[in-house]
Amino acid sequence: MELVKGFAATSQDDYQLNIINIFRHGARNSARQEIASQTPAGMLRQSYAQSFERVNRLANALKSLGVQPGDRVGVMDWNSYRHFECYFALPGMGAVLLLLNLRLATPDLAYVINHAKAKVIIVDQTLAPFIEAAAPLLETVEGYVIIGDGEFSAVRTKLAPAHGYEELLAAAAPEYDWPHLDERSAAAACYTTGTTGRPKGVFYSHRCVYLHTMAVAMNSQASDQDCFLQLVPMFHALGWGGVYYAVMVGAKIVFPGMYNLERLDLLAKLMIDEGVTMGAGAPALLMPMLEYIRGLEQKPDLGRTRFFCGASEPPLAMMKGFHDLCGLDIMHAYGATETTPLASANRLKPWLADALSDDEKWDLRRKQGLVINGLDVKLLGMNGEPLPFDGKSAGEICLRGPWITGRYHDAPGSEAQFTPDGYWRSGDVGTIDQEGYLKVTDRLKDVIKTGGEWISSVDMENAIMSFAPALEAAVVGVKHPKWEERPLALVILRPEFKGQVSADDVRAHLSKSFAKWQLPDQVLFVDQIPKTSVGKISKKDLRQAYQDIYMK
Amino acid sequence: MELVKGFAATSQDDYQLNIINIFRHGARNSARQEIASQTPAGMLRQSYAQSFERVNRLANALKSLGVQPGDRVGVMDWNSYRHFECYFALPGMGAVLLLLNLRLATPDLAYVINHAKAKVIIVDQTLAPFIEAAAPLLETVEGYVIIGDGEFSAVRTKLAPAHGYEELLAAAAPEYDWPHLDERSAAAACYTTGTTGRPKGVFYSHRCVYLHTMAVAMNSQASDQDCFLQLVPMFHALGWGGVYYAVMVGAKIVFPGMYNLERLDLLAKLMIDEGVTMGAGAPALLMPMLEYIRGLEQKPDLGRTRFFCGASEPPLAMMKGFHDLCGLDIMHAYGATETTPLASANRLKPWLADALSDDEKWDLRRKQGLVINGLDVKLLGMNGEPLPFDGKSAGEICLRGPWITGRYHDAPGSEAQFTPDGYWRSGDVGTIDQEGYLKVTDRLKDVIKTGGEWISSVDMENAIMSFAPALEAAVVGVKHPKWEERPLALVILRPEFKGQVSADDVRAHLSKSFAKWQLPDQVLFVDQIPKTSVGKISKKDLRQAYQDIYMK
Repeated sequence: MELVKGFAATSQDDYQLNIINIFRHGARNSARQEIASQTPAGMLRQSYAQSFERVNRLANALKSLGVQPGDRVGVMDWNSYRHFECYFALPGMGAVLLLLNLRLATPDLAYVINHAKAKVIIVDQTLAPFIEAAAPLLETVEGYVIIGDGEFSAVRTKLAPAHGYEELLAAAAPEYDWPHLDERSAAAACYTTGTTGRPKGVFYSHRCVYLHTMAVAMNSQASDQDCFLQLVPMFHALGWGGVYYAVMVGAKIVFPGMYNLERLDLLAKLMIDEGVTMGAGAPALLMPMLEYIRGLEQKPDLGRTRFFCGASEPPLAMMKGFHDLCGLDIMHAYGATETTPLASANRLKPWLADALSDDEKWDLRRKQGLVINGLDVKLLGMNGEPLPFDGKSAGEICLRGPWITGRYHDAPGSEAQFTPDGYWRSGDVGTIDQEGYLKVTDRLKDVIKTGGEWISSVDMENAIMSFAPALEAAVVGVKHPKWEERPLALVILRPEFKGQVSADDVRAHLSKSFAKWQLPDQVLFVDQIPKTSVGKISKKDLRQAYQDIYMK
Repeated sequence: MELVKGFAATSQDDYQLNIINIFRHGARNSARQEIASQTPAGMLRQSYAQSFERVNRLANALKSLGVQPGDRVGVMDWNSYRHFECYFALPGMGAVLLLLNLRLATPDLAYVINHAKAKVIIVDQTLAPFIEAAAPLLETVEGYVIIGDGEFSAVRTKLAPAHGYEELLAAAAPEYDWPHLDERSAAAACYTTGTTGRPKGVFYSHRCVYLHTMAVAMNSQASDQDCFLQLVPMFHALGWGGVYYAVMVGAKIVFPGMYNLERLDLLAKLMIDEGVTMGAGAPALLMPMLEYIRGLEQKPDLGRTRFFCGASEPPLAMMKGFHDLCGLDIMHAYGATETTPLASANRLKPWLADALSDDEKWDLRRKQGLVINGLDVKLLGMNGEPLPFDGKSAGEICLRGPWITGRYHDAPGSEAQFTPDGYWRSGDVGTIDQEGYLKVTDRLKDVIKTGGEWISSVDMENAIMSFAPALEAAVVGVKHPKWEERPLALVILRPEFKGQVSADDVRAHLSKSFAKWQLPDQVLFVDQIPKTSVGKISKKDLRQAYQDIYMK
């Protein structure tokens, strides 16, 4: 885009958006606000003022280890108050908070640390084995800081040289002279864990994070009357940005610490006990919490509480369940590592609240919602043409704006994920209706490209699943000599229907919602459908297994 | 401040914050939201989509008149939907919206237009006489656009060349190709009307306005469930920014148009009829609205409604009155033309809500509130030394941040209003307590500087007024050969106390709250105290009249 210059303004435009200011100003206005942290020794309660002092000490400590502006520092921790301290101290001193995903395989973890050229790694002692496994592969790390609650000398680690987090803080000065950073400097980095290829680095600038923080605060009407629960793992896309906007508005913050993965339902107890009113999480976290509430004799009143929910579509039953049992509001949201992450959020507009039936409202709430004010969005069709926002035309969702990534760090060949006019291609296919509601319909790589048109594999799977005899279904596009691709359906029948149903029966059922040219050429009845490690249909495997079926 | 560069980020940091995006995105997400405007012909109701089309037409029309990026365009209008259109079209096309105060005397109005070198003036036909009076003095204006509801040919004006606003819009194309503007370009300009010297120009950048807009939206928890009433005259400091944040969150907007200045109380009727939930205004506007509500047999429930209130301190009786009669919440706020204008806003923190008595809460609500997250504040003492935030030390309030002005446009000699480290000196004296609440205690020029210390003239006046025999009081600092200044008090006694009270009686009363060295050397009993045109004590006149009283 060509940049046009206007008349000279008199505003303080050189004053840079720096992440540390969020807490500097938060501590000024909300010094006594509480940060409550679940620890092995019980709930730890600190004030903003106490926490901000620790952030200052941490910066001094890291400086004493040689960390300088521009350096990358890897952090692997639970959702803890020390992780939170890293979220401010590292960007504040001009270093880059490199978030390390504790679920990465060792070679990928080492790849990320080496690729980002991290100088120091901060790791909780319970997670140190992951770093120890990667350590022999690390090329740039000069030292380690071990987070722990006991005496540092009690920690056995193969990492060297290693320092104790608390010992460093105790020895450091309580005030740091924060630099005034160019807002285009990287503040934090997250690596995407795509299904193909190496992880790719997204380096968030201070400007990006600051503007995203204001946008999320605005979109959740957050205030210091709120209490925020950090559910989303803080190594995912800035933990969805929650701690930054919580501090910006002066809200109480709750950290669950190293919670029991077998007892996610107990997170609901924490939520109720601490008076949580806002948060964010994936359905996999929220579902067990709903079950906990379902099991309570006395249901809590959570009518003020709202959670952003994303990563995958929140099941309708879950949204309704929270609403009916305790009044908790699930706001379906959409984003990715590349979008910091909030790109869209669902809310019911006042005129739709009046006009729609209850069922229609729930249908609407299932959409990914309105693209946040501040971001440009377009849907690109098969040939790169922009599609209308009519609720029907499905195209690749492309986003542009201050908190969207513009490239991947040092990743030759990744340029194709951006349009010539600077949009990031999400790889998701969706529609936008006339009210502006975004609906994600498929992954671009799973959509069936046939005769110049797209068919949503997800829509067709859902349609097959609404056929009584079908227990499970998968639909993929398979190469075709004439039509580029043609749909192939795999169906697992319920036991009682085995041998009773034909491919034509399935096609007849599908023809209620699909045009004739869209129907799958072949419908195969199978006993199993391959899945990925997280339980999703492995369409990659299916496409490979059946790659020749239409080529003969 | 030295700027430190960190590691290169991958965010789209070149994407500029442009004001037009607020409406571009607002129209996408809230196309059907309503803009309700009081007009001579009744309520006009437009949708965001309709209004945005008119904004596009206006930009095309102005382009056809030769307006280009960087040009200044003066606008003088009531709080109308066309004024609103100018608020977006002019910044959007890269021109500068020069807000013209209809209360300026002709020479000052001409000075502002000439100083800003405005190319075009847009004026409502009812206000055209003000521009006509100034026209012979104007040096740079090439054309006029007349806003009116009738046919343009029906308007008689001496302004030439003149065009009809509606005729221009009707002839213009409905889509404008908005440029991508450097966010440091000026979007709008306001001239301060200080009591001394010529008006001084503040030119707001796009960046400044955009960040201010997000901050205000966040601080009022605004959403599309809200309805915003534009009470503040739109020629004052961007009308306090209301229309921008209303559009950003997708709220309904209400414009009172050319309302009856003798019947300000009717604004309360408009507020109730349209379901207003947020707005801003000075006490002078809000007081008559409260009287209207007091007169209603059936009091409305305005428990969701909150108004920022500033310019002067909202009387406690008014704040309580709104609260008790209808639940409307008055949020005391502080700012100036130089601060875009929101610098601080009062809200009751949750822990104070629990800890304070009702009286203490109301006392707290009278303070100017918490400096907005995003702004730096300091209090400077007599010798430029920073003072602690202890609720007692009073110093000049100095502000720094993205929406604070860094200089005045083309105003040699005004540099002294800024500190070497880039703070704007407000000219107000105040305290900040340990919770962060700002309290303005005096104007710097009215504060009494004596023996290296400051005495608040306002505090001393209030103390005298709490003395039963006193009807009115004024305190000023008068030059003194030894102590720099010494306080002088003027008191109007209630008729029944005339001749019954001595200067020592007044000093004895004052000594309950002031130290001996702070007491006024002279207390004069007078029949009248000189006032300014807006009814404030004219301390300038008093200082002049009594300049020699301590020099003899």
